Amino acid sequence: MELFYSKEIGKDTVLLSGQEADHCARVLRHKEGDTVFIIDGEGGLYRCTVLSVSLPKKGNAEVSCRIEEKSAGVGVRGYRLVMAVCPTKNMDRYEWFVEKATELGVDRIVPVISEHSIRTTVKKERLEALVLSATKQSLKSCIPVVEDAVSVKDFLLRDFEEGALKLIAHCEEGDKRTVRDYVSASQKPLNVVIMIGPEGDFSQKEIELAKERGFLPLTLGPSRLRVETAALASVSEIYFASI
Amino acid sequence: MELFYSKEIGKDTVLLSGQEADHCARVLRHKEGDTVFIIDGEGGLYRCTVLSVSLPKKGNAEVSCRIEEKSAGVGVRGYRLVMAVCPTKNMDRYEWFVEKATELGVDRIVPVISEHSIRTTVKKERLEALVLSATKQSLKSCIPVVEDAVSVKDFLLRDFEEGALKLIAHCEEGDKRTVRDYVSASQKPLNVVIMIGPEGDFSQKEIELAKERGFLPLTLGPSRLRVETAALASVSEIYFASI
Repeated sequence: MELFYSKEIGKDTVLLSGQEADHCARVLRHKEGDTVFIIDGEGGLYRCTVLSVSLPKKGNAEVSCRIEEKSAGVGVRGYRLVMAVCPTKNMDRYEWFVEKATELGVDRIVPVISEHSIRTTVKKERLEALVLSATKQSLKSCIPVVEDAVSVKDFLLRDFEEGALKLIAHCEEGDKRTVRDYVSASQKPLNVVIMIGPEGDFSQKEIELAKERGFLPLTLGPSRLRVETAALASVSEIYFASI
Repeated sequence: MELFYSKEIGKDTVLLSGQEADHCARVLRHKEGDTVFIIDGEGGLYRCTVLSVSLPKKGNAEVSCRIEEKSAGVGVRGYRLVMAVCPTKNMDRYEWFVEKATELGVDRIVPVISEHSIRTTVKKERLEALVLSATKQSLKSCIPVVEDAVSVKDFLLRDFEEGALKLIAHCEEGDKRTVRDYVSASQKPLNVVIMIGPEGDFSQKEIELAKERGFLPLTLGPSRLRVETAALASVSEIYFASI
C-alpha cells in the first residue's frame, strides 16, 4: 500500500499537490477512478477515489480526490517520545537515525548542539523530507516533527511536561539504569525525552545542568556505540518496552 | 583508543602489515617507542610497544611491535548471536545493518537468499572490511564472522547447536512472541539464531521449513520495519535482554 500526504483536506475532498501529486500522477500514473490512501500527518488516514488529474507540461501535477472513508489514529502509539540527539559529524549517519527512528516510532526529533559538537548545523528540510518518506513507507499516519537545531543548554532550560521521563546518556561515571529499568518504574502512559550526546560526550556543564533539570542518567550497556547507534538503540528500547 | 588488527602474533611480538600497518605508520605516524593496542579478532587484546617501522616507497608499511601485556576476553559478551538476514536491494542499507550489529554485538552474519529475494549476491569482502572497522571502532576484540551467501533453504537444513534459540520474523498470521519473551523463557547462556526475510517476506515453503526445523515465530511489534531496521532491532533486543 502506497501512502500520499496532504494538508489540503476539505469536507469531502483532498487535493494532492507538489511532489506528492507528481509521484501519484507522473510516477505511479494514477488516474480517475483509482483508489489512493492519503495521510494528513496527524493521525488521519483517508481512503480516496481519484476524481481528476492535472498534468501540466511545466510545474507540478495536481490530483483531486473524493474521500470515501476516514480512519483516525492509524499507527498511533501509546507513548510519546522526544529524541534530542547531537548531529553527527557525518550527516549520513544522522539521516540514517532519523529514518529508522521514524520507522520504529518517535514524535519529535530535536538536533541539539553540544559545546563538544563537531557539527553545529543541520539541513532541517532534508531531515523533514526523510521523515515524511519514512512515515509513508512504514504506513504511519503521524509525521514526527523535526525541530530547528538548538543548543543543549537551551533545550535543557525548556519546561517539560509534568511526569515526563527525562533521560540523558553520557559517559561520566555514576549510577545509571537502562531504558527498560526506568520504563518499568514509570507511570503510564509514557512520555519520554532522551538526550544523546556528540562524539566527544556532553560537557561537564551540560551534564550538571541536565541533572539539575531532572534528567536521569541512562546506560546503553557495555558496548561503545556511535551516536546514531546509541540513539536508535534507545528508540528501539522504548518501542519494545511499550509492546 | 585506536585499535589495530593482526593475526601475525608471536610469543613476544606482533607484526602489523597491509592496510593496518599503513594506517598505523603512514596515517597516524606511529614510531618506535609508541604504545599501540592490537586485537587478534578472537578475544585477545595486546598492549604493545612499537619496535620498528618500515615505510617503503612502494607497497604497504610494516610495523613490528613488542607485546607488553595481553588481555583475554575483552568486550566478549555472555551470549552468542547469529543473524541470518536477507540482503537488501540497496546494499547501503545492508551495510548499515552489518556495521551497527557489530557495534551492539553479533557473532556471525549470514546473508541468506530467499525465493523472494530481489538481491541474490553480496560482496563478502566489503562486508568483512566494514565488520573489521566497526569492531575496532567499538573497541571489541572479537571480529564477527561474515559468511558467504547461502539460500534460506540450505541455511535451515544446517544442524544447529542443541538448545539454540531459533527465531524467524515473517509476516504470516499466527501466534508470535517478542525477543524479550523468548529470552526470558530460555536457558542461559543464550545461543540465538534470528532470521530476517527479504522485502517481500519469506516464501510459504521457507516458512514451513523453518517451522519444521524448530524456528519459532518472532514479532517485532506493530511497526512496519524495513529489513535492515527489523534486523537491527532484533540485535538490539538481544543485547539489552542480556545486560
